[in-house]
Parts: sequence; structure tokens; C-alpha cells
Amino acid sequence: MPSEFDIIRQYFTPTSISQKRDDVVLGIGDDAAILDVSEHHQQHQLVQSVDTLVAGVHFPIETSPQDIAYKALAVNLSDMAAMGAEPAWFTLAITLPDADEKWLKDFSESLSALAKKYRVQLIGGDTTHGPLCISITINGFVPTGKALTRHKAQLTDKIYVSGTIGDAALALAAWQGQCLLREESIDYLQQRLNRPKPQIDLGLLLSEYASSCIDISDGLIADLKHITDSSDVGATIYFENIPLSKEFNLNLTDDILITSLVLSGGDDYELCFTIPSAKQADFEKEINEKYILVTCIGEIESKPGVRCIKDDKEIDIQGIGYQHFTDI
Amino acid sequence: MPSEFDIIRQYFTPTSISQKRDDVVLGIGDDAAILDVSEHHQQHQLVQSVDTLVAGVHFPIETSPQDIAYKALAVNLSDMAAMGAEPAWFTLAITLPDADEKWLKDFSESLSALAKKYRVQLIGGDTTHGPLCISITINGFVPTGKALTRHKAQLTDKIYVSGTIGDAALALAAWQGQCLLREESIDYLQQRLNRPKPQIDLGLLLSEYASSCIDISDGLIADLKHITDSSDVGATIYFENIPLSKEFNLNLTDDILITSLVLSGGDDYELCFTIPSAKQADFEKEINEKYILVTCIGEIESKPGVRCIKDDKEIDIQGIGYQHFTDI
Repeated sequence: MPSEFDIIRQYFTPTSISQKRDDVVLGIGDDAAILDVSEHHQQHQLVQSVDTLVAGVHFPIETSPQDIAYKALAVNLSDMAAMGAEPAWFTLAITLPDADEKWLKDFSESLSALAKKYRVQLIGGDTTHGPLCISITINGFVPTGKALTRHKAQLTDKIYVSGTIGDAALALAAWQGQCLLREESIDYLQQRLNRPKPQIDLGLLLSEYASSCIDISDGLIADLKHITDSSDVGATIYFENIPLSKEFNLNLTDDILITSLVLSGGDDYELCFTIPSAKQADFEKEINEKYILVTCIGEIESKPGVRCIKDDKEIDIQGIGYQHFTDI
Repeated sequence: MPSEFDIIRQYFTPTSISQKRDDVVLGIGDDAAILDVSEHHQQHQLVQSVDTLVAGVHFPIETSPQDIAYKALAVNLSDMAAMGAEPAWFTLAITLPDADEKWLKDFSESLSALAKKYRVQLIGGDTTHGPLCISITINGFVPTGKALTRHKAQLTDKIYVSGTIGDAALALAAWQGQCLLREESIDYLQQRLNRPKPQIDLGLLLSEYASSCIDISDGLIADLKHITDSSDVGATIYFENIPLSKEFNLNLTDDILITSLVLSGGDDYELCFTIPSAKQADFEKEINEKYILVTCIGEIESKPGVRCIKDDKEIDIQGIGYQHFTDI
């Protein structure tokens, strides 16, 4: 009879997670993976980061295994997007309370599908027993010197965001009972929370234009502040310029909740980035040709901190007390 | 007032974990680290692996933060040793039930000390809230084609282990109340359990000699079986040849417990490896010159499976029911 450990392991084998890459000399099954960085990547730097999702902290306990697997990998892919990197490989450390075969099968299939879509290979894993927790370390490559960072935003740079902001936070607020959603909006908004799209293509394009970049996980203000603090500058953004989805507008009328969700909601995994004024025209031309939705929402200034203007008045950002469902 | 998150973060900053390497272009503090693999490592392959420790599963809840930090990094360094790799960088995903400053300080100092000793840099981290769990992904380099794996053991190869076997399992058995330790042995044996020494130098040397290698974490028989199964061979080892420490022999008289701890105890993080007969003389000469303790305990055969001979009889390995405190 296979042990609990064998059952778990079979869902994280090369057969189950099927994306393969030529630069993986030896994948799962030894003490470590062996990876070819010498031949293919002489003109590249490796980028690497880790993100953990804890059940009951980063997602509600009742989230489906498909959505958990998707999100665990997607938030890591999003870190690669924010660096302007092409993702390559990942390791998976998963702690499980038990070996539920149906759960494992669903988790594994969803993880495999997303890995295939972004051509990233699972190269190492550790399955352990305990409260549900998934930690992924992802690797990617950037052309040497071209990585997008947080610390090079300059005065007069324009601040952009991709996509629309606040959708994931709205879905979470509804789940927490803070508001009701219209029936026809539920699917769209839940997908925005559970299935964030990693902006890999945009990240690759941005490495030619942007002076800084971050993905929005903690909230627009908090993440933009990571850029301004790291770059020793400040920023003003204009609330009316922040792109909101049709569904977001349809479902919310409470002005305080709207402001709170948009500015500090987080979880959208859109990119927030800065474009030097001199490159703005070329950037917008290319973006338009490629039909990518990005919106200019403000600019970098010398005064430290992040300000948001709404109806010609500065919003009291400190007063936005929205507590999102994320890291301590 | 700093948030709980800020408190935690300060113990995983470049100041707290102070080992630095020239090939880290950008360390902790952005969406990902940027790593130089092009200039220094054209003749090398990257190796990468992940290992997780869960409180109450991989270590008793009351283990000191210093020992937890040490072991979390040491077991990952041991994976690099088993690959014949020189370790380079690691990411740390730590899930914490609360922000206990004293605990964090002790954990961080211990982690930093071991990182310095092996010249590995912390390049990424994620601190999350939940039941205590530490997952480290480690990176190292091997000269291209020189990595030690599990799948190349050949018929007539000699099987070796480093150090002594069973000490960590004995310490754990005592902690679990299965036996009593002599007062003068407690420190030594607890250190063997809590502070395993990663056999990095031996691993580097083995890449010139060994046909296969693994670190002993699950138990001698189980780990040797990983080699024989992967290599499509079998093995016989001789119980009387297995090196035991003075403290192990002093504390145990129960023959069944001795056999069980030595063969399936695990947690020693010594290396088990195979040396082709033709290289054995040169290998032993170099090992003797360097005063490294390794012992030949058996040989690779064609008959599948792993057998252990004791008092000229084959031990019933299936009957050894020792349940160790490790992965499910």
C-alpha cells in the first residue's frame, strides 16, 4: 500500500507537473535540481524570489485547491513580471494537513496548467505534514542590467498602473460581508481575487522603458510608497485617473469604501511603474499598438511620501483603515 | 510604533543576516534578488533545492530558536553537500505565530552565524503569519557535469558513509522517552540532533571520486535505497562495519533498538556515497591525508533492494518499525 507520503509525492512528479525546459539538466528526484545557466544565459542575470500563502491568512480556508495552486504560482510569477524577468523554474514547499487524493489531484492539475502556460518547470519540492501552507521560490532571467527595481524612480517620472485597481479587494470585502455584489459581477470579481493574471509580457516590455516597477499586492499606496521610499522621492497620484473596472463601479456607491479599496485594498497583482517623461510618448505608442491597458495616474516629485488628490483635495491617507487579508 | 511586520522584517534584513557575496547584484528588499551567474559561473551549473521544517513535525515545539534556525539552514546546506556543490545563496520563507522579539533575535543571530560560516547569502524572504514553519530554498554551484547524483551507482562500487550513524536518532529516542541517556553524553547527542554538520568539504572532494551520493535524513537503509532504486542496482551492507560513536555505544545495550536507530533512524545528515572500485585506493589515500572520517560499509550488487548482514545473517529490514520524527 502506498504511504501517505507516496500519495502526495505522486502529484508533484515530472509526470503530474509536466512542463519541461531544456535548461533543466536534472529535475525533481535528487537532493537538488541541476540547472544549466552557462550556455543559455551568458548575457543574463538570474532573478529569484519567494512568496508564501498560508491558509486562513492569505486565502479563506474554503478556497478550492485549483484556486490555491493557481494563486500560489501566480503571485510568484507576478514578482518576475515586476522585475521585467522571463520566468524559468520554481520550487514548491507544501505543508499539508492530510493526503486527500482529490484535493491533491485538483491542486496538481491547476499548478501544472499554469506552469505550462508560462513555461516554468517545477524543479524541486518538499512535502511536509502540518497546517496548509504553500511556499514557492521562483527563478527567472533578465538581460544583464535590465532588471526593473524599486529604487530608480526619478523626479518628473510619470506613474502608471496596468489593468484596473480594486477588483480583488472588492471581492474580498464582499466575502468578508462588508458589501453585497450583484449576481452578474460575482464571477468576474472572484476571478480577479483568486486568479490574478501575472503581467509577464508587460514586464518584459517595461524593461525597455520603466525606471521602476512593483506589483500591487499590499495596496496601491503601500506599494507605490515602496518605490518612492527606495528611490528617495515622493509621489502624487490623482484618484480620478485610477482605472476602475465596470464591475467595480457597478457594485459600489459608498465613497469611503471605494477610496479604501482602491488605495489600500491590494491583491490585484497589477503592475505599478514609473516612466521617464522623455520616454512617455514612445512608451504610449508601443502600448497602444499592443492593446495593453495601462493608465497614467500621477507623477514623481521631490516631497517625500505618497499623496492622493481627489476632487482637488488631498485625501487623508492615514485615515484609510482598511485591513486586508494578507501578511502580518 | 513599528508594526508586527516591521519588527519581524528587521531581523531578516541585510544588517541582521550579514553574509555578503560579490555575485549578488541586488539582495533582499525588491520583488526579487538579482544574481550574477554569467561572469563567475560560465563553467558551472546551478543546483537548487528546498527543505521545510514544521514545528511539532520536524522538531519538538520547545526547540530553541537558535537550534531551529541552525537546523533549517544546515539541512539545506546538507543537500548542497550531497550534490558536491558549493553553496551560494538562499531564500527564507518563515511563517510565525507571533512577533516575539527575543525569539526573532535569537533565530536571526543563529541563522546569520551559520550563513557566514558557509559563505551563503540570504537573498529573499517572505514572513507570514501562521503556525511555525520554515522553508529554505538553497542555491549552489558545481563544475559542469560534476554534480553528485543518486542514479549512477554501478555494480561492484563500494558503499561508504561519513562520520558516525545513529547519534541523532538516539537523541530523539531519548527525548521521546524510549531510552535514558548518561548525563555526560546528553550534550554531544543533542548537538548531533540539533546541529548537524553539513559535509560541504567532503561533498566537494567526492565530486572527483564518487559515482553517487545522498545525505542521510530519512535513515541509512531508506536513503541508500534511494540510490539503488535510482541506479537500478541493489546493495548489501554489513552492520558491524557501520561506524558508531563512543557515546552511542555507551548508552545503548538493547540490540533491537540499536539496529533500528542505526538502520532507520535518520537525521544524522552524514553522506552515504558509492566509490568505484578502481578509484577506492586513491580516494582512501586522499581521505586519510585530510583526516576525514569515512567508512566502507558494503557494496553495490545486481540484486535489487538493500540488504543488511549482521552476525552473518540477513536482518529482516521490513521488521524494523522505528517511526522517526520527520516527513509524512
